[in-house]
Amino acid sequence: MPNLTALLEKMTLEEKIFQLMQLTPNFLSEDDANLTGPLAWMGVTENMASNVGSVLSAVGAKETIALQKQYMENSRLGIPLLLMADIIHGYRTIFPVTLAIGSTWDMELAEKSAAIAAKESAVTGIHVTFAPMVDLVRDPRWGRVMESTGEDPYLNSEYARAFVRGFQGDDLAGDMDRIAACVKHFAAYGAAEGGRDYNTVNMSERQLRETYLPAYKAALEEGCEMVMTAFNTVDGIPATGNKWLMRNLLREEWGFDGMLISDWGAVSEMIPHGVAADGAEAAKKAIEAGVDMEMMTSNYANHLKDLVEAGEVDIKLIDESVLRILKLKDKLGLFENPYRAASEEREKEVLLCDEHRAAAREIAAKSFVLLKNEEQVLPLRVGQKLALIGPFAQNGDILGPWSIWGKQEEAAQVYAGLSARAGEDAVIVARGCDIEFATEEQLQEAIAAAKQSDVIVLALGESSEMSGEAGSRGDIRLPQAQLDLIQKLKPLGKPMVVVLFNGRPLDLHGVLEETDGLLEVWFPGTEGGHAIADVLFGDVNPSGRLTMSFPYSVGQVPVYYNNYNTGRPLTPQNANERYVSKYLDMPNAPLLPFGYGLSYTTFSYSDASLSTAVLNAEDTLQVSVNVTNTGATVGEEVVQLYVRDVAGEVVRPLKELKGFRKIKLQPGETKTVTFDITEEQLRYYHADLQHKSDAGEFHVFAGPNSRDGEPQAFRLQK
Amino acid sequence: MPNLTALLEKMTLEEKIFQLMQLTPNFLSEDDANLTGPLAWMGVTENMASNVGSVLSAVGAKETIALQKQYMENSRLGIPLLLMADIIHGYRTIFPVTLAIGSTWDMELAEKSAAIAAKESAVTGIHVTFAPMVDLVRDPRWGRVMESTGEDPYLNSEYARAFVRGFQGDDLAGDMDRIAACVKHFAAYGAAEGGRDYNTVNMSERQLRETYLPAYKAALEEGCEMVMTAFNTVDGIPATGNKWLMRNLLREEWGFDGMLISDWGAVSEMIPHGVAADGAEAAKKAIEAGVDMEMMTSNYANHLKDLVEAGEVDIKLIDESVLRILKLKDKLGLFENPYRAASEEREKEVLLCDEHRAAAREIAAKSFVLLKNEEQVLPLRVGQKLALIGPFAQNGDILGPWSIWGKQEEAAQVYAGLSARAGEDAVIVARGCDIEFATEEQLQEAIAAAKQSDVIVLALGESSEMSGEAGSRGDIRLPQAQLDLIQKLKPLGKPMVVVLFNGRPLDLHGVLEETDGLLEVWFPGTEGGHAIADVLFGDVNPSGRLTMSFPYSVGQVPVYYNNYNTGRPLTPQNANERYVSKYLDMPNAPLLPFGYGLSYTTFSYSDASLSTAVLNAEDTLQVSVNVTNTGATVGEEVVQLYVRDVAGEVVRPLKELKGFRKIKLQPGETKTVTFDITEEQLRYYHADLQHKSDAGEFHVFAGPNSRDGEPQAFRLQK
Repeated sequence: MPNLTALLEKMTLEEKIFQLMQLTPNFLSEDDANLTGPLAWMGVTENMASNVGSVLSAVGAKETIALQKQYMENSRLGIPLLLMADIIHGYRTIFPVTLAIGSTWDMELAEKSAAIAAKESAVTGIHVTFAPMVDLVRDPRWGRVMESTGEDPYLNSEYARAFVRGFQGDDLAGDMDRIAACVKHFAAYGAAEGGRDYNTVNMSERQLRETYLPAYKAALEEGCEMVMTAFNTVDGIPATGNKWLMRNLLREEWGFDGMLISDWGAVSEMIPHGVAADGAEAAKKAIEAGVDMEMMTSNYANHLKDLVEAGEVDIKLIDESVLRILKLKDKLGLFENPYRAASEEREKEVLLCDEHRAAAREIAAKSFVLLKNEEQVLPLRVGQKLALIGPFAQNGDILGPWSIWGKQEEAAQVYAGLSARAGEDAVIVARGCDIEFATEEQLQEAIAAAKQSDVIVLALGESSEMSGEAGSRGDIRLPQAQLDLIQKLKPLGKPMVVVLFNGRPLDLHGVLEETDGLLEVWFPGTEGGHAIADVLFGDVNPSGRLTMSFPYSVGQVPVYYNNYNTGRPLTPQNANERYVSKYLDMPNAPLLPFGYGLSYTTFSYSDASLSTAVLNAEDTLQVSVNVTNTGATVGEEVVQLYVRDVAGEVVRPLKELKGFRKIKLQPGETKTVTFDITEEQLRYYHADLQHKSDAGEFHVFAGPNSRDGEPQAFRLQK
Repeated sequence: MPNLTALLEKMTLEEKIFQLMQLTPNFLSEDDANLTGPLAWMGVTENMASNVGSVLSAVGAKETIALQKQYMENSRLGIPLLLMADIIHGYRTIFPVTLAIGSTWDMELAEKSAAIAAKESAVTGIHVTFAPMVDLVRDPRWGRVMESTGEDPYLNSEYARAFVRGFQGDDLAGDMDRIAACVKHFAAYGAAEGGRDYNTVNMSERQLRETYLPAYKAALEEGCEMVMTAFNTVDGIPATGNKWLMRNLLREEWGFDGMLISDWGAVSEMIPHGVAADGAEAAKKAIEAGVDMEMMTSNYANHLKDLVEAGEVDIKLIDESVLRILKLKDKLGLFENPYRAASEEREKEVLLCDEHRAAAREIAAKSFVLLKNEEQVLPLRVGQKLALIGPFAQNGDILGPWSIWGKQEEAAQVYAGLSARAGEDAVIVARGCDIEFATEEQLQEAIAAAKQSDVIVLALGESSEMSGEAGSRGDIRLPQAQLDLIQKLKPLGKPMVVVLFNGRPLDLHGVLEETDGLLEVWFPGTEGGHAIADVLFGDVNPSGRLTMSFPYSVGQVPVYYNNYNTGRPLTPQNANERYVSKYLDMPNAPLLPFGYGLSYTTFSYSDASLSTAVLNAEDTLQVSVNVTNTGATVGEEVVQLYVRDVAGEVVRPLKELKGFRKIKLQPGETKTVTFDITEEQLRYYHADLQHKSDAGEFHVFAGPNSRDGEPQAFRLQK
C-alpha cells in the first residue's frame, strides 16, 4: 500500500492539478489531429491530457487496458488512471430503467441489478459508476424522472442504499467484481422548475432537508464512495459552486470525506449561470465549494496554478482534493493492479451471460405495473389469436435512455417475446403507426390484423429519446398518432390491451378509459419482450406499484401523494362548494396514485389494529393488518404503511410512507403484516431545522396504495 | 380626540377581545333566528356579536348608518364600529380587473381608479377596503391572477403605491372621501403550487425577499394602514400563524405598527392546515404571530379569555392589538363621527356618476392590449357591416370577479357599445355559442350573421367565475366550443377580429393564429362595451402592455420573463442540440412576453446610448434611446428599461425591469427617452440576505417589451 501523503509531497503543482481533471479517452489519443481538435478548443495541452486523473466512458477491456498501460508508462509517479462511466441500469445486460426498478418495491432485486451491472462493467475495466441517481422527482415533464425511483424520500432512500450495496458490495477493496458508486446529483436536481432540464431549483432549506436530501444521505450512510454535483442552482447558487451545500452541509455536517466530482461541464456552466465572469472565477468557486474533480472542462487545468500562485486559492484545498482522489484509487487497489478486473476473456464470459439475462427478465417482469384489467382480459390464454399492433411491436428501442453500452439488436422485442411464448402463428403483427405519425396504409394494415384476432395487444409509448437527460416535454400525453390508432381500432369491438413503453408518468386520457387492459412496462431492457410475455400470459403475476403519481393532466403538475392539506381542503362533502382548494376543471388527485398497481388476483385488508393508542417516546408501536388473497391466483401484494402527523409545528404531508412489505399469498391465504413505529420515524425538520417529533395525534394507514386505507389514530406522548 | 390608552384601561378583557373580531352584518342582526343560525354554529354569543370591533361587507349608507347607530347605542364605552369591505376594482362603478389596470402601465390611472372606488365606498359608510392585493403571480392557472398587476416586483411595487395613494389620499384623517387600504395577502399567496388556490407555497427566504415581498413593502412605505394575512403557508407555517413572517419581518424589521387582520376564516384554517389541534391553539398561534383581528371565525372570542387567564397568552399582546384597532378608528375620525362620509344623499350623487363612468371608460380603453392586427383589420371603419358573434356579444358578465357591489345590468355590453358608435344597422349580432357549449342552431345563426358582414367581431372568453378566488383551472385554453366557433367561421374568408374577455393569461392556440386581429380586453368593467368601441373604431389607439406572460401552453408553466439563464441556455445557435435546457415539444419562451402589446401605429427604436461605460457607486448613469412613431396615427408607447447583472454572487434574472415611460408620439415624431441608473437599483438579496450590488458587468436594454431590445454594456465600479 502506497503512502499517499508521501506521494502527494512528491507531486508538482501541475501534476496535482492534472489529477483533478476528467476527460473522455479521445483527449488522451496520441493522434495528431487531437491537438488541433478537442484539446485545442478546450485549451488543454497534450501534457495535461496524458496526465489527467480520470477518464470517463472508455469502452471495453481492450481499450481500458491499453489506456491504462499507456498512461502508466507516462506516469512519473506511477499513479494509476481512474476509469468511470455512466452505468445506470445495466452495462451490457440492460435492466429496466430506474423508475421501473423503483416499481418493484424490491430492494433485493434493485441490489441484484446493480451488482450485475457492477460485474459487467468491472470486467471491462470500469472502476466507478456515476450512479445511483437518487434525485426525488415530482414533475413528469422532466425527462430524467426515468432515472429516479420516484417521489418518496423514504422509498428513494431505501433504493439508494440498495443500489450502493449492489455496486460496491461490502468489500470494495477485495471484491474486484464491484465498482465504486457515485451518488448524484447533489442536490435537488429533480426539482427543475417547469420540469425543464437544468432549470432553476428553488425551495427553502427546510423543504430541501425534508424532501430532497434524505436519499443522498442514505447513499452516503451506506458507504457510497463519491458524490456528483448537480447542474442546477440551489437557492440561487449553482450546486457546483455552492459552498454552503458542499462544504457546510455535505462535508462538515454530514462528514463526507470521499470524492466530489462536478457533472459534465458544470464548472464552466457557472459562466452562463451568471455567477462567474470567466473560467478562473469558475475554477476558484468550484474548488472552494469542494469540487475535487472537474468533468470535461479545463478550468482547473487552465487556471488553478495561477490562482494558487497569486494567493487566490489555498494550496491546501488542492492537496485535500488530490488526496481524496488518490485514496479512492488506492481503495480500489489500483496502485497494486491498475487493470483491476479488466479482462477481455472474462468480458466474454460475463457480459450478457445467461444468468444476467435471466435476472434482467425477472426484474423486468417484476417492474411492470398492471393499471387496468377489465373483464379479466389478462392474462392472455394460449390459443387466442393476437394482433400485436403499434410502434413498439417490433422495436429494439426498449432499453431506455442511459443504456449506452447496451445494444438494441440484443434486446428481446415484444413480437419475439410473444411469439416465443404463444407460437408465431398465434401473433399477427402490424406497426399501425410510428411514434408520432401514421400513414393510411399503416392504419389499414393494423385494422386488417386486428380483424383476424381474438385480442388486440397494442404496443404503444414514447421513444427513448422523448425522456432521459434533456428529454423534457410540455405535453405528457401519448403522441396523437397513437391515440388515433386506439380510436381506429376501437370500433372493431375486440378486447384491447395496451402495453405501454415510457420513461415518465403520462397523462393516460385517451388510453386508459378506451382500452380493456393496460400494462405499464416502462423501458424494460434487454429481456423486455420475454418479460412482457411472462406477464401477459400469466407466468408471472404482475406486482409492480407506481412510485410516481400519474397525473390527470399536465395542468395539475406538480401532483404527488405526500402533499399538504391546505386550509381549505377538498373533501367529498364540499366538492361543489366554491371556496375550496381545487381546480374547476379537473380533480386535485392524480389519475393513478403513488403505490398503485393491480394483480391478476385480488387482495382484501382486514382487522387493522394498533398495539397501543398511546406511543411513548422510548417505546415501539405495532401496526398490524391482515391481508387475504381473495382471488384464484397466487400473487404478490405490496402492503404499504403511511403516517400522518395531525398537528405539527410545521404543516405535515397528508400521508408519508414509513414502511412497506411485499408478500406472496396463495389463493385464499391470509397473512398478518406487522409494522413497527417508533418516535424516531415521526421526526421531521421543524422551523428551526431541528429534526424532532411533535407530541399529539397521529393517523396511521396500512393499505394497498397511498390513496386507499382507513386511518387509525394514536397519540405520541413525550 | 380620545385618550386611547385611557380608554383601553377602561375596557374589560371581554370587551377587548370582542374588538379583535370581525363578522358580517347578519351576525349583528337582532333577528331571533340568528341565535340558532350563524351565531350558534360559530359558538358566538349575541353579546359578542353586538360588541365586535369590526363588520365587513355591510351594504349601502342606509345599512351602515343603521348598523353604526345600533352599535353605538349598545357600546358601553362609545367605541365606534369599523366597517370594511372588498373594494377591489371599483365599488359601484366597476373598473377593469386589476390585471387589466396593470396593463395600462399608468400609475395616475391606477391611482384614479382607487380614488374613485374610495369615494364611492366612503359615501356608503365603508372605512377600509381589503385592497390592494399585490401578490406577485407567475402561474396563470391560479384564478386570482386577475387581482394582481402581474409578474414583476418593481412594477407591482409601483402599482401598490399608486393604489394606496388612491384609496388613502394624503390626508386620510381629513379627507372623508378616502378610505384606509389593507395590503394583501401577506405573504406570497400568488405562489400557490400548481396554481391551485390556497395551496402550499414554498421558496427560500432569499427568493421571498427578492421577488415576492417588495410590493407589500412598497405599499407600507406609501403609508398603507393595514395588512391582511394570506391563506397559504410560508415555508410550512400558515401565514396567519407565522411568527417569523409577521413579528420578526413585518413588525420588527419593517417597523409596521398598523393593524393586521386575518383573511376570512384563516385562523380556524390552521386546524385543517395541521398546525393547530383545536381553536384554542389556533387563537394562541394567531395572536402570538401578531394577528390583531380575526375575520369571520370566533377563536379569539371563544378562547383568548381562557388562554389569558391560564397564563397561556400574554395580556400585553391583546392590549397591543386592541390599541392598534382603536388607533385606526381614531385616525379615521370615527370617535368624532362614527358615520364618517356615510350619506344616503351623497350616495345618490356619487355612485356611478358621469365622471366616474367616464373614468372607467378611459381606464378600460387604456387597459386593452392589442395582440394581433394583420392587414390593418383594425381599427374598424364606420360603414363596415359587422357581425358581432360570441358569448360576450350581449353579456353583462364583463365586470369580472370581485365586483360584488357592481351591477351587471349597469354594464355597457359589447353590442351596446358597438351599435352606439356605428349605428344599430351596422351590427348584426349572434351568440354563436355559450361559454362552454354550442348548439347547431347557434352555429348556424352565427354563420348566417357572418355571411352578411364585412368583418366578423368575435366576443369570446372565459366567464368571470372561471377566474377569481378559487377559480383555478388546469386547462388554460379557451373552451373548445369557442375554438370550434372560430373554425366554423373561418372558411367564410371574412376578416375576423377577436375581442377576448378573461381574467388570466390564456394559451391562445386556436385563437391567435386563426384570426386577423385580437384585442385583449380582460374584464373591462362597467363601461366595457363603450371602451371596446372606442378602441375598435380607433377613437383610442390601444396602448396596453402585458404584465404577465401568455404561455405557449400550460405545459410550460411557470413561465415568466425575469427568469434565470441556467448553465445550458437555449440559444438560436444550439436549438437543435440535445443537451440544452429546453422542451422537446415546445419553446421555452411564452407565446407573448411580458411588456408586449401593439398599437395602430408603429414605433422604432434608435440611437440607444449610455452616458458612461463605467458607473461608480455614487454616480448616476443615463440610458437614452430615441423612439419614433413610424406610422400614420398618433399613439402611445411604453418604453421599458431592463437590466441584467452578468455575473453575481447569486444567479440573476436575464432581465429585470428597472424603469418605464409611457410616451405619446405624433406620426413621424421622435422623442428621446432617458432613464437614470444608480448603484442602488442594482442591489439584490445575496446569499447572506444582505441587499447589495456586485461590481462588474451589467447589460441594459431599452426596448418595447421584455423580449426585444439590444443589450448595451457597462461596468459597475465600487
